[in-house]
Amino acid sequence: MVEANRVETWDVPVVDPQPGGALVRVVLGGVCGSDAHIVSGEAGQMPFPIILGHEGVGRVEKLGDGVTTDYAGVPVKAGDLVYWAPIALCHRSYSCTVLDETPCENSQFFEHARRPNWGSYADYAWLPNGMAFYRLPDHAQPEAVAALGCALPTVLRGFDKCGPVGRGDTVVVQGAGPVGLAAVFVAALSGASEIIVIDQVPERLAVAMSLGATATVSLSGTDEAERRRQVYDRVGPRGPSVVVEAAGVLRAFPEGANLTGSHGRYIVLGLWGAIGTALISPRELTTKNLRIGGATFPKPKHYHEAMHLAARMQDRYPLAGLVSHRFAISQANEALEAVKSGAAIKPVIDPTL
Amino acid sequence: MVEANRVETWDVPVVDPQPGGALVRVVLGGVCGSDAHIVSGEAGQMPFPIILGHEGVGRVEKLGDGVTTDYAGVPVKAGDLVYWAPIALCHRSYSCTVLDETPCENSQFFEHARRPNWGSYADYAWLPNGMAFYRLPDHAQPEAVAALGCALPTVLRGFDKCGPVGRGDTVVVQGAGPVGLAAVFVAALSGASEIIVIDQVPERLAVAMSLGATATVSLSGTDEAERRRQVYDRVGPRGPSVVVEAAGVLRAFPEGANLTGSHGRYIVLGLWGAIGTALISPRELTTKNLRIGGATFPKPKHYHEAMHLAARMQDRYPLAGLVSHRFAISQANEALEAVKSGAAIKPVIDPTL
Amino acid sequence: MVEANRVETWDVPVVDPQPGGALVRVVLGGVCGSDAHIVSGEAGQMPFPIILGHEGVGRVEKLGDGVTTDYAGVPVKAGDLVYWAPIALCHRSYSCTVLDETPCENSQFFEHARRPNWGSYADYAWLPNGMAFYRLPDHAQPEAVAALGCALPTVLRGFDKCGPVGRGDTVVVQGAGPVGLAAVFVAALSGASEIIVIDQVPERLAVAMSLGATATVSLSGTDEAERRRQVYDRVGPRGPSVVVEAAGVLRAFPEGANLTGSHGRYIVLGLWGAIGTALISPRELTTKNLRIGGATFPKPKHYHEAMHLAARMQDRYPLAGLVSHRFAISQANEALEAVKSGAAIKPVIDPTL
Amino acid sequence: MVEANRVETWDVPVVDPQPGGALVRVVLGGVCGSDAHIVSGEAGQMPFPIILGHEGVGRVEKLGDGVTTDYAGVPVKAGDLVYWAPIALCHRSYSCTVLDETPCENSQFFEHARRPNWGSYADYAWLPNGMAFYRLPDHAQPEAVAALGCALPTVLRGFDKCGPVGRGDTVVVQGAGPVGLAAVFVAALSGASEIIVIDQVPERLAVAMSLGATATVSLSGTDEAERRRQVYDRVGPRGPSVVVEAAGVLRAFPEGANLTGSHGRYIVLGLWGAIGTALISPRELTTKNLRIGGATFPKPKHYHEAMHLAARMQDRYPLAGLVSHRFAISQANEALEAVKSGAAIKPVIDPTL
Repeated sequence: MVEANRVETWDVPVVDPQPGGALVRVVLGGVCGSDAHIVSGEAGQMPFPIILGHEGVGRVEKLGDGVTTDYAGVPVKAGDLVYWAPIALCHRSYSCTVLDETPCENSQFFEHARRPNWGSYADYAWLPNGMAFYRLPDHAQPEAVAALGCALPTVLRGFDKCGPVGRGDTVVVQGAGPVGLAAVFVAALSGASEIIVIDQVPERLAVAMSLGATATVSLSGTDEAERRRQVYDRVGPRGPSVVVEAAGVLRAFPEGANLTGSHGRYIVLGLWGAIGTALISPRELTTKNLRIGGATFPKPKHYHEAMHLAARMQDRYPLAGLVSHRFAISQANEALEAVKSGAAIKPVIDPTL
Repeated sequence: MVEANRVETWDVPVVDPQPGGALVRVVLGGVCGSDAHIVSGEAGQMPFPIILGHEGVGRVEKLGDGVTTDYAGVPVKAGDLVYWAPIALCHRSYSCTVLDETPCENSQFFEHARRPNWGSYADYAWLPNGMAFYRLPDHAQPEAVAALGCALPTVLRGFDKCGPVGRGDTVVVQGAGPVGLAAVFVAALSGASEIIVIDQVPERLAVAMSLGATATVSLSGTDEAERRRQVYDRVGPRGPSVVVEAAGVLRAFPEGANLTGSHGRYIVLGLWGAIGTALISPRELTTKNLRIGGATFPKPKHYHEAMHLAARMQDRYPLAGLVSHRFAISQANEALEAVKSGAAIKPVIDPTL
Repeated sequence: MVEANRVETWDVPVVDPQPGGALVRVVLGGVCGSDAHIVSGEAGQMPFPIILGHEGVGRVEKLGDGVTTDYAGVPVKAGDLVYWAPIALCHRSYSCTVLDETPCENSQFFEHARRPNWGSYADYAWLPNGMAFYRLPDHAQPEAVAALGCALPTVLRGFDKCGPVGRGDTVVVQGAGPVGLAAVFVAALSGASEIIVIDQVPERLAVAMSLGATATVSLSGTDEAERRRQVYDRVGPRGPSVVVEAAGVLRAFPEGANLTGSHGRYIVLGLWGAIGTALISPRELTTKNLRIGGATFPKPKHYHEAMHLAARMQDRYPLAGLVSHRFAISQANEALEAVKSGAAIKPVIDPTL
Repeated sequence: MVEANRVETWDVPVVDPQPGGALVRVVLGGVCGSDAHIVSGEAGQMPFPIILGHEGVGRVEKLGDGVTTDYAGVPVKAGDLVYWAPIALCHRSYSCTVLDETPCENSQFFEHARRPNWGSYADYAWLPNGMAFYRLPDHAQPEAVAALGCALPTVLRGFDKCGPVGRGDTVVVQGAGPVGLAAVFVAALSGASEIIVIDQVPERLAVAMSLGATATVSLSGTDEAERRRQVYDRVGPRGPSVVVEAAGVLRAFPEGANLTGSHGRYIVLGLWGAIGTALISPRELTTKNLRIGGATFPKPKHYHEAMHLAARMQDRYPLAGLVSHRFAISQANEALEAVKSGAAIKPVIDPTL
């Protein structure tokens, strides 16, 4: 990406890994909705030109000096499939060593395209020393691991930060894009008794059902009152115990806060990019004893868990099938278009095309 | 209170306690800001006429059949000083026996004035079977226990529900009324390293300092940006880890949410009565990894802890001195005026006057 | 039960319910391993003669004055199926109103056989005011609700008190009696990734597999070292994150503590009746950063959740089939023998026989 | 330390810091009880010869390339006082990046004496890249920061891992060595209502009182039953809510477990070095609903908090006075003797002597 709305295919040198790092041949580079935001310029300035792509599964080409294991202590060698967290933590900032938290003040999401680079819309990703990567379990399908992209670690992070979703929770998920689908998937694996998904696209709602949703509510032809009625009919008069915002649009926020039942939690995950404000009734926070939380920036451990969840569940849930569209590196613009239009749940860059 | 804006002094019969209940001679009946809201009619319909007063310390006059201990198992007899929680839980509702939570769907805050009644603007409070009361520890001063009124259990409940405030937290408290002062007091006892209080009344800010605040910020002559600057100068660039809303006015809400530092918590306790909405930036919930929670309706255990905290700290903090104004039952209107005008931190009804 | 080792069938009058209480016609009275302990005299003195039976599903015969709902606020009427928690809490003890905890100092497990009585080895159970009961959801099978008996609420209580078992936990369960099977069932519903059960009886291990276990280890022909090897082979060199003791024999304790992986938890549920001591290496608590916890006395909410979990899962798991043996009231001795010998997972008293 | 029971003073070259590291001139090197264990050989093999000393406050002599801040992001320059965590985490092991936990599988406590070395019984400590250090706040006294040594981060870690000690807890601390004193200090700052310390040395008990204990129990002339009586007389019949083991001797373990009240926690911190077993009644874990936990290996954040707590409290508590004995590097054997004999709470190596 050279500047806003301008994505080109360049040849840049392949660089040997630094000590502690790794050079990885990209197998699949996930295309994320936020990539489209970045390309449109909405996400602001970056160190342009950059190589896009923060999701990836690849095959180790060469390991840097001293590297014999992945970041979970599992032995790793050239040829192994790996999955990586796209942000290297510095481990010497206030967030890293005092809070044990992300984001790290010194972390860097993108790198200049002419420098060694971990963008995954590329043949190779150069993972610097400190960028956590994990060996895929044997038999794991790269497509299953890539299917929910960074949305799955984002949801794991969100439930870690804002309280777990567990056995017996009645959950509403606003939005059936990757974050919403990942929330459905994790809630289902964690024993939620109801998982109701709200979206306008029937195909997405169908995918949500295949990942564990127990009911759907369509945005088409319903107003907020009608959607509330449908949700409360299903979960009972006390309302849902957890609502997850994965819609990414501001008007979802007041609706989600209102939907949440007494003593419930509203977990906001999708609105990280929505500039603007929304109305809330502070009184209801107290009288309903609500908690609202937001989260972003998964830690390496969330990538590790995401990979293992996907690998463990790939035969029980149609994860790999979510990777419905493959594009060559030179087709990046088409891939971005596919994610923007909603035509594909998870388009990927396949450098072999 | 006969109807909105009409408080009268009536003679009603003193009724013997029911089995499991107690009849208590009121020593101090706390006058709460919410009483003034109720009298003005803002709090809506009640089973009028009612006897006001939901805070009280009294002396056991007579115990109901079968009562030999208080609700913590401490032996109790006529003549003992007791403190009570003004809402009897039913222990057979969804909130009571499934959630272990308050409010109870079947609880009753006020009772018709012609029926046996636990309102504390009275000579006697008739505590029904199931209304928790606790014997004051020996040497406890009734004024110290009454000083922070229902605000102290409210704060204990809030920190219980929205996460504890503890060692090393940097706390901002919006408002130095009883809820704000109670938040200062509890934060100080819990080891918070900074406790900064925002209010416009210098006398209240001085009281806050006496209860453990480490700094104050005046609302007079400052705008939101200036207040933020003062807070951040004190706690450092990462901002406060906890902000407590105890202001009760809607404009405090967006300011409080903005003030809260990354990974921080905003605890809303004062806005239970403020009808209306406020603006929030949902995006900041995610990018700052914030949690916002509200709470109301303390449990009996919070009254128990409040009483013991006050008794334990009465010699180290000037609690009893907060009970600055005493009024006869017949002066209820003046007492309500005193709390409304802010002339007194904690006016009380003293039935012996 | 008239005295140790003497169980007889008596005729006692059926008593109308008290206000707030209920009279229930017993449909199934669960026979629990602890009943056998009581009968053998190991559990010590009781207010003999007593009516045995602390597990039951029944049909409302008559409701006491003022009762229109169950303890979750669900409307209830004569003829409805209900499930009850066999201990009424007093709601005026230190445990009840200060700790919000069980056991209640004033609770009573058994009642003299000549007085109104809630023992379930009987045609009727007389539930006093305050004894929580819950209406079965429509379509719930009484056998499914009774299948795991008090073991299911015990496990829910244990995971509530000692920390949840959740997504990704690797769990070892010592013992495949009702508590162990309930632990398997709850761990499976909560997303545990491995659930390994240790027992000597192949039939029990087979039942554990049907309830969600992922592997079994036999006590027959293995020593502690070999069992450890099998567990670690399966979960990896870091060991299980949770071990649940449901064996009820002292020698299980040191083995369980040793099995638990670093940063893991050992949850002791089965040893409530095992008088005696066991050896532990305190050093390992620190160097492995372990936590060990025990729990007993489920709250009403755990009975409520147990009933709903069973009803929700009755079609997915073979719960009802665990109720393999039915006995008439007059066959109580045979029923106790069946549970003691391990011939049946869950024998029940069926008063219609 | 050349080998067991042989400590000598050697001259080794002072080495420039590596990129990311720092060279620090030692101001105070804390002498810890575990140093004496190491020297006696009880702690087993080490990469001898080693330089002893894992506690230190020093002055930055020279910063490695790229270092402009400490590990909390605070600007740092030559001449600044710093405090360091003596173990560098690798940030690429299972513990580091999946569990977010310590100990790190790849960490190294000691280094061969002929290699660049961070032992603090020396004129200089060479802190490798990745070893967290923090700038002392202005006005912090090095003695106050060094006073409780690694015991203070150990206690903060323990309360982090095994549940916080907070407002209203009734705490018993077994042992008034540095770990016990640190537990008293932290419990006092966190609002515990009772803190009862058990030890045999009157001087240590007096120090405990100066750090916030509310009562003491002497080991001299008391048996376990009498100590229990004294504790329960003070905290009431329900017993202490938290017991902290800081005695380091096995017989403390069963006494501590027995002392803990129902629903209480027993936190084991001192027994990391005590090879052997102790008896426990598993039954009591269940009937008393106890939790027992142990912890070790503080994280960098616990060192950061320890430093700030000490600096914040140095004027309110006599921390600096605990550093009662200073020894030259060449007097290391005497310093070790002082800590072993209990003559000094916190002897230090002062390289200027």
